[in-house]
Amino acid sequence: MAGKTDEFKVIEVKRSVFDANDRQADELRDELRSRGLFLVNLMSSPGSGKTTTLRRTIERLRDEMSIAVLEADIDSDVDARTVAAAGVRAIQLHTGGMCHLDAGMTRQGLESLDTEGIDLAFLENVGNLVCPAEFDTGASRNAMILSVPEGDDKPLKYPLMFEVSDVVLINKIDVMPYFDFDMDACRTNILARNPEATIIPLCAKTGEGVDAWCQWLRDGVEAWRA
Amino acid sequence: MAGKTDEFKVIEVKRSVFDANDRQADELRDELRSRGLFLVNLMSSPGSGKTTTLRRTIERLRDEMSIAVLEADIDSDVDARTVAAAGVRAIQLHTGGMCHLDAGMTRQGLESLDTEGIDLAFLENVGNLVCPAEFDTGASRNAMILSVPEGDDKPLKYPLMFEVSDVVLINKIDVMPYFDFDMDACRTNILARNPEATIIPLCAKTGEGVDAWCQWLRDGVEAWRA
Repeated sequence: MAGKTDEFKVIEVKRSVFDANDRQADELRDELRSRGLFLVNLMSSPGSGKTTTLRRTIERLRDEMSIAVLEADIDSDVDARTVAAAGVRAIQLHTGGMCHLDAGMTRQGLESLDTEGIDLAFLENVGNLVCPAEFDTGASRNAMILSVPEGDDKPLKYPLMFEVSDVVLINKIDVMPYFDFDMDACRTNILARNPEATIIPLCAKTGEGVDAWCQWLRDGVEAWRA
Repeated sequence: MAGKTDEFKVIEVKRSVFDANDRQADELRDELRSRGLFLVNLMSSPGSGKTTTLRRTIERLRDEMSIAVLEADIDSDVDARTVAAAGVRAIQLHTGGMCHLDAGMTRQGLESLDTEGIDLAFLENVGNLVCPAEFDTGASRNAMILSVPEGDDKPLKYPLMFEVSDVVLINKIDVMPYFDFDMDACRTNILARNPEATIIPLCAKTGEGVDAWCQWLRDGVEAWRA
């Protein structure tokens, strides 16, 4: 009984937090649109390759547009240092143990970073396939990475993450021969959750497939300003 | 400002939920000890190999002891079916979108499953390196899996998970040649977070290293009854 009461309380508070967050997210998105800043919220499990993908993306696009990165992490600053070394504006957000980013944290991050003249910004969310899907960050688009070693059944087990993602990058395709990963089954599982999802298989390490992802980003930046 | 107030509210509620949960977890653990039931809470990222590791473990130990499995998942019952096929008592817990298990949910699971005569039970937690670490389930011991493709830096980025785990299984060592994974660095990173952690490299797919893990479980069952 005590357990039930606790659960109920948590859910009530979560709902009011969600509603407040959704309003803040919509406001932030409107501002980003009026400034022509295309913000991509990048989500995945720990170790799926968010940082490597960002580094590779920055290498390809930094001569065409101005890029910035907001790195969220519970505790370390490994990723911000890595990304800053690729030559773009980067900031580390420590979530203080929080398992996700919300619109308020995203706004704080953008305000701390000078975004004047920035065309494309990435928000590298906390490595987690569950909680970040529940909180709208206010980003222009949601992107997620599923890596081959995680398995093709993940859309069945973490449905919300796939539902909210506009684009799903399937990373580490170079190791497909060493894993039981069925690309067709994976596509079917993703599209069952989200028929509108764009699916891009790639390997951030070797660069294979990164062109298609960069083109998706170029189109996104363009459309965001239109 | 609004954002700040919201965050503060969440944290307050979380604290009282944590306190209530800790009490329930201690009570459950005392009961498990008096019944001689050794319950292992198994945590990891999505796709690290929890289910495959459990299947392999069950194959090795089912002739020596009575085993049961509680499978937690947000939505699917893929894992419970897989584990039941290995010939042990299994139950699926749907968390209804929750990102972790707490002591109340664990107790409900144990009550739904007939645990009479069971020596060893596993709680397969939600795939998530963040939230499950914050909630004591009442299990006898915490075990976690870090798989090679996730990278050797994960103890730096998800510190609490490594701090609360009594044993860390490093899975998928068969694919070490294809990833930049430094086993010595990984050990150092884990021990910096938790000097008491037992570290067992293994490959659930091939069975390599599974003996050491099974011995850890045998010793645990024995000590729990003493």
